[in-house]
Amino acid sequence: MSLAQPIALSLGDPAGIGPEIILKAWRTLKGSGPVFVAVGDFATLARAAGADAEIAAVSSVAEVARIFPHALPVIDMPLAASVVPGEPSSAVAAAIIGWIEAGARLAMAGEAAALVTAPIAKAPLYEAGFAFPGHTEFLGALAPGPGAARPVMMLVARDLRCALATIHEPLARVSGLLTADAIVAAGRITAAALSVDFAIPRPRLAVAALNPHAGEAGEIGEEEETIIAPAVHALQAEGVAASGPHPADSLFHEAARASYDAVLCMYHDQALIPVKMLDFWGGVNVTLGLSIVRTSPDHGVAFDIAGRGMARPDSLIASLRLASDIAARRGAG
Amino acid sequence: MSLAQPIALSLGDPAGIGPEIILKAWRTLKGSGPVFVAVGDFATLARAAGADAEIAAVSSVAEVARIFPHALPVIDMPLAASVVPGEPSSAVAAAIIGWIEAGARLAMAGEAAALVTAPIAKAPLYEAGFAFPGHTEFLGALAPGPGAARPVMMLVARDLRCALATIHEPLARVSGLLTADAIVAAGRITAAALSVDFAIPRPRLAVAALNPHAGEAGEIGEEEETIIAPAVHALQAEGVAASGPHPADSLFHEAARASYDAVLCMYHDQALIPVKMLDFWGGVNVTLGLSIVRTSPDHGVAFDIAGRGMARPDSLIASLRLASDIAARRGAG
Repeated sequence: MSLAQPIALSLGDPAGIGPEIILKAWRTLKGSGPVFVAVGDFATLARAAGADAEIAAVSSVAEVARIFPHALPVIDMPLAASVVPGEPSSAVAAAIIGWIEAGARLAMAGEAAALVTAPIAKAPLYEAGFAFPGHTEFLGALAPGPGAARPVMMLVARDLRCALATIHEPLARVSGLLTADAIVAAGRITAAALSVDFAIPRPRLAVAALNPHAGEAGEIGEEEETIIAPAVHALQAEGVAASGPHPADSLFHEAARASYDAVLCMYHDQALIPVKMLDFWGGVNVTLGLSIVRTSPDHGVAFDIAGRGMARPDSLIASLRLASDIAARRGAG
Repeated sequence: MSLAQPIALSLGDPAGIGPEIILKAWRTLKGSGPVFVAVGDFATLARAAGADAEIAAVSSVAEVARIFPHALPVIDMPLAASVVPGEPSSAVAAAIIGWIEAGARLAMAGEAAALVTAPIAKAPLYEAGFAFPGHTEFLGALAPGPGAARPVMMLVARDLRCALATIHEPLARVSGLLTADAIVAAGRITAAALSVDFAIPRPRLAVAALNPHAGEAGEIGEEEETIIAPAVHALQAEGVAASGPHPADSLFHEAARASYDAVLCMYHDQALIPVKMLDFWGGVNVTLGLSIVRTSPDHGVAFDIAGRGMARPDSLIASLRLASDIAARRGAG
């Protein structure tokens, strides 16, 4: 299904691999779509494009569809100074945040079908006073979904979908952050998104344990009995087909993956280890529970290889395709 | 290479799948070896064998090689009462522990080439006063290696080897248990074992981070900077080809696996998730740093399917083969 509106793609950190993978994604998708428009500094993208002049500034979203087969459309929000690939700077933090916000506002206004965000580095944004742990939380404040519940991060790789109960937290803090209420809220949003955004009529949600062997009946940790099992029961009482807590090491092989539609993971690496094993280059991050459709690559800015032409656009391309699929399903709903 | 001595195989929990998978492993290996002798209750194994009478009690290890092609040899250490598959009992705990100890003593005396242990359930052993978290720690006390360092648990699946800095600990306790000294000790034992037991002349050890994104320069946890990186440097100073701390989610895909000979993981599921994804049925647990060779299946007693004929012997067979390989390498060293 083709979308009436293009996807807005924020440039991310201009010193990272964002400009390069955006150009590469456009070269792959220019004939097939999904159609997208970059939101960021035209000059940075022009430098990434080199002599090919494959980019074109647009003054409105309405021009994007016509231009896209011939050049990467860009909504130019220029930087005051140029950046050097591989050299992050907090001086451009405000611009980076502005690009994300502009892209989000296009999606909120219905002018864009979805928002896809190229990677940002957190340290320079923090130095400049950015008050959110990352894109997900920033967009949760900007474009909250129904009930203003906290957004949920989901990773998608091949046949595996993993939603996260906690995200970028030190491992030692995870246990203290887990509550039955937070797990229920994340499970509820995940089940709703599986139903609407992934078109799964009665989604099955496998809830992962926190401790080895799911705590072995309390011998190796108590969170399963005191927090996670009660959350599973509460989700079941709401009509969600939830199960668990399951020992995490037995949840991700092929036969296990056939038994659920998504896993609700308790911490970052519990989800990211299996996601990146299944598809190191093509995993996609989806934010559930926003008023807009938002996806992003599951990798970072990769300053170490920025500007060298080696970055792979697989994850960004997969992000654009998944955003398009979800937007089409929401539009059809 | 064939071994002069058989492998001693302790029966494990007689109410679990141990008896069944031992018979199945013998049927697979009786023609090819490695040759092994079960140490446990003859009557339990006879019941698992059914009408086939495929088992034979032996009075000494010297008889094992002659009998093995025709029947499963058993060193009978009888239970006082029979057990029911699927119904664990602390009344048999002392016998279970005695079988492990007898097998270990055969290996320590050089009468057995190695010890392989069928699964035990911890709860009934704890009820009976067993003071060790599991096999690994019990054998560390019984058959300590040089310097009496704590033994290290390693999981092996296909091309992946993962050693563990902490084992069966609640996730919330892992950070508090990690010290640079403990990581260095585990890394040292792992590197030595890779060299001797796995015949890798200059083993490369990848040390995993604890936190998401390896702590992102201290933004998401500090253990990488305060504990793990200093341990990596100390290992390097000892001449170990150690690297890291590496973000755990980028360590386990195929290309990454080619860059090291083993990963030193910080906690149980960080190792077990990738191991069980790569080979859910055939992973092997190896104890490094003992005076004897010891392996075991990487699964549990599976009381829920005990006695029903459905248990797969893959992991036990892989454990017997790996124990034989390691014993042969040590013997050749």
